Amino acid sequence: MLIDKLVSRIIDLDSPIVVGLDPRLDKMPQKLRDEIFFVRGKTPEAAARIFYRFNKAIIDHIYDIVPAVKPQIAMYEQLGVAGIDCYIKTVSYAKSKGLLVIGDIKRGDIATTAEAYSHGHIGKIEIEDTVHKAFDEDFITVNPYMGSDSVSPYLSDCQKYGKGIFVLVKTSNKGSKDIQDLITVDGLPIYRHVGNLVSEWGNDLIGEHGFSSVCAVVGATHPEEGTILRENMPHTFFLVPGYGAQGGTAKDLQGMYNPDKLGIIVNSSRGITEAFHSEEYKTYGEHNFAQAARDAVLAMKRDLLG
Amino acid sequence: MLIDKLVSRIIDLDSPIVVGLDPRLDKMPQKLRDEIFFVRGKTPEAAARIFYRFNKAIIDHIYDIVPAVKPQIAMYEQLGVAGIDCYIKTVSYAKSKGLLVIGDIKRGDIATTAEAYSHGHIGKIEIEDTVHKAFDEDFITVNPYMGSDSVSPYLSDCQKYGKGIFVLVKTSNKGSKDIQDLITVDGLPIYRHVGNLVSEWGNDLIGEHGFSSVCAVVGATHPEEGTILRENMPHTFFLVPGYGAQGGTAKDLQGMYNPDKLGIIVNSSRGITEAFHSEEYKTYGEHNFAQAARDAVLAMKRDLLG
Repeated sequence: MLIDKLVSRIIDLDSPIVVGLDPRLDKMPQKLRDEIFFVRGKTPEAAARIFYRFNKAIIDHIYDIVPAVKPQIAMYEQLGVAGIDCYIKTVSYAKSKGLLVIGDIKRGDIATTAEAYSHGHIGKIEIEDTVHKAFDEDFITVNPYMGSDSVSPYLSDCQKYGKGIFVLVKTSNKGSKDIQDLITVDGLPIYRHVGNLVSEWGNDLIGEHGFSSVCAVVGATHPEEGTILRENMPHTFFLVPGYGAQGGTAKDLQGMYNPDKLGIIVNSSRGITEAFHSEEYKTYGEHNFAQAARDAVLAMKRDLLG
Repeated sequence: MLIDKLVSRIIDLDSPIVVGLDPRLDKMPQKLRDEIFFVRGKTPEAAARIFYRFNKAIIDHIYDIVPAVKPQIAMYEQLGVAGIDCYIKTVSYAKSKGLLVIGDIKRGDIATTAEAYSHGHIGKIEIEDTVHKAFDEDFITVNPYMGSDSVSPYLSDCQKYGKGIFVLVKTSNKGSKDIQDLITVDGLPIYRHVGNLVSEWGNDLIGEHGFSSVCAVVGATHPEEGTILRENMPHTFFLVPGYGAQGGTAKDLQGMYNPDKLGIIVNSSRGITEAFHSEEYKTYGEHNFAQAARDAVLAMKRDLLG
């Protein structure tokens, strides 16, 4: 079970941290931008090249202290073909360094379409009698709004190829209340219903650590909801965004751990990769952006583990 | 307002039909496959090339009888970079023939990420002091699960660039009941709440035909729900999937029109593009797949308009 690999790496490294690789062009080091724009012009291809060089340096500086990275595909997809190429290369490079990759793609569609997403991202595609991999992330994030039949293709591929998914349950943003917090006639909010579905979907994919490869996304910004979800989803592993920049603190995560102090992996994106822009790491200089990222991970680790 | 252009084209052509371009490799004409695999090998690049050649022929045969096409990005994305390139070229070719393009991407994410999707798909991306377009669809489909702040970046770009979105409200698949049909304490199912949000989001984008550029996806397989939604969303235009292959009939659509017999555009994908495989169009031969598609559109038009 892939979830066992993730939990083992968290235990071995004592690091329930995933670094979000969500590059923003205006936050890239000036020297890196100048150098690549000079050669390639101010093009989407150049921007994608800058992202890749940046990601590679970040990965080289963190691969031995975190179990996973989480590239957000939107940041790449906005650049079109060159961006998708950069996303795929980032996934591949991270895996070559032993990192697990959570593709933050939040896809969701009806059965045959979900199958195409699943085959492309966590399965295999067949071209006549040949077999190919397209994206090949380890885990992907999935949107549940369209219901069980929109998720089942991913479950098949999780079984078949030893992959995993994180389903949106209670997201970190303020607007998550608009639909996810609506209370149904049985007194439960929507996110609890989704949580119950996620538990069900994961029943056949529970590994030796007691967690399923069908996981949930639960925002650090909702500590109470997270605590209730943990109580009701003992076998579900949580990906927790919203720590740091969005306001979630180490204290907010306490109720989301299980009694063994396992069960979550906490994401930080800008707080790590853009640390070199912050007051705290200013003295590093922008050429040391990757070292600043490493030290920001170590600081986050101290903060989380107390 | 872009929605006016869509409604006008529907009126002019007397054709509330959008053709879904969701190519499946095993359904492509054998001769087209053989020819391209021979030259390019059995690769994702070859598959993408086959899709593009197929789409181009379909578009050439339908651009004068339908207002829009709807490529489903998953079918392309599964092929990786080559697939995304094919998707973008398909969008561009359809637009060059005067078709409106609804990019069926069903994206949904928190604000900064939604902004990246929006800029890439319906807005513009800035690379230093230069401006580029990546996907450039006219409309895209959007998933509402993450709430208002996850949708607002698209609304800004709809205003700024004269684009539109279709938000999932009640989807055509069976599993749509799992979350969308849950009843809240005020007696309304979730899809009604989402419908109300969509109406609200669209208030500032209502055009001269009385419809907003913020539209809804409502499955043909749910005639009762569609009728209730129409009554409660008089200014919302509906994209209606689920006609034909999924079981929706012309009769099921009656309650979704407004009193002027406007307000919906009905999607058919396989029913049109794969018509040449059906019993009805078998005599055409696979080399006439595009002519079969055209005649299937005309048959659908007769069926819808009665």
